[in-house]
Amino acid sequence: MRALGRHVILELYECDSEVLKDLGKVRDEMMEAARRAQATIVTTIFHEFSPFGISGVVVISASHLSIHTWPENRYAAVDIFWCGADVQPQAAIDHLAQMFGAERISVVELKRGVLVENHLEMKLDPLAGHLLQPVSP
Amino acid sequence: MRALGRHVILELYECDSEVLKDLGKVRDEMMEAARRAQATIVTTIFHEFSPFGISGVVVISASHLSIHTWPENRYAAVDIFWCGADVQPQAAIDHLAQMFGAERISVVELKRGVLVENHLEMKLDPLAGHLLQPVSP
Repeated sequence: MRALGRHVILELYECDSEVLKDLGKVRDEMMEAARRAQATIVTTIFHEFSPFGISGVVVISASHLSIHTWPENRYAAVDIFWCGADVQPQAAIDHLAQMFGAERISVVELKRGVLVENHLEMKLDPLAGHLLQPVSP
Repeated sequence: MRALGRHVILELYECDSEVLKDLGKVRDEMMEAARRAQATIVTTIFHEFSPFGISGVVVISASHLSIHTWPENRYAAVDIFWCGADVQPQAAIDHLAQMFGAERISVVELKRGVLVENHLEMKLDPLAGHLLQPVSP
């Protein structure tokens, strides 16, 4: 099935809290992750919350990378969304996991915008009992 | 299981292509979606790609909403990420589906940053055969 975009959901647990509170460091490492993924950075936006916690987005020509950090829980939620074959998310994942000192990570990759090319209308065939048969076009 | 964040993955198919190419309209409807979700907008960033397609992020105090549009495929990928109990994502979903004229949508909600609170080490109890018993702390 063809998909328009790809999306990595990255959970970084047991990170270095001091890094997760440092806006400059989080921004620099997210930008470096985008570069290592071979993405072209369009613009960035980072925001620091009180008492702590950082939200940030790196808009790339192929979509975006985002991050939200919970220093008090040593956790960061990262999303990497891209289209096209040029982006190498593995390099971004490796970089962030190392720079944030994550001791445990989870990676899930989703296809986004899946185009189902053959929509076969299905109906119950009374002769076949419970079997479903595609309707001829 | 307690989670630090919640994340809605919203797929909008068979949308109005003209809306999906209109940066001003996409930005306005994303900001209105954030307001309807009772979120506090911190800042926004929207970018138009050539020949068409829009990427945008609304940073909210509770995290973010993002969008990527493929007008030529009548598709938009939306993510709504939030923490806390105040955000009402259903209102944002309803608003965007209606404003973009989506004829088919998919909604998946994920927990992010799940904190497993009782790590019980499990061992095989030789007296109980195959039954697993938690190890006392």
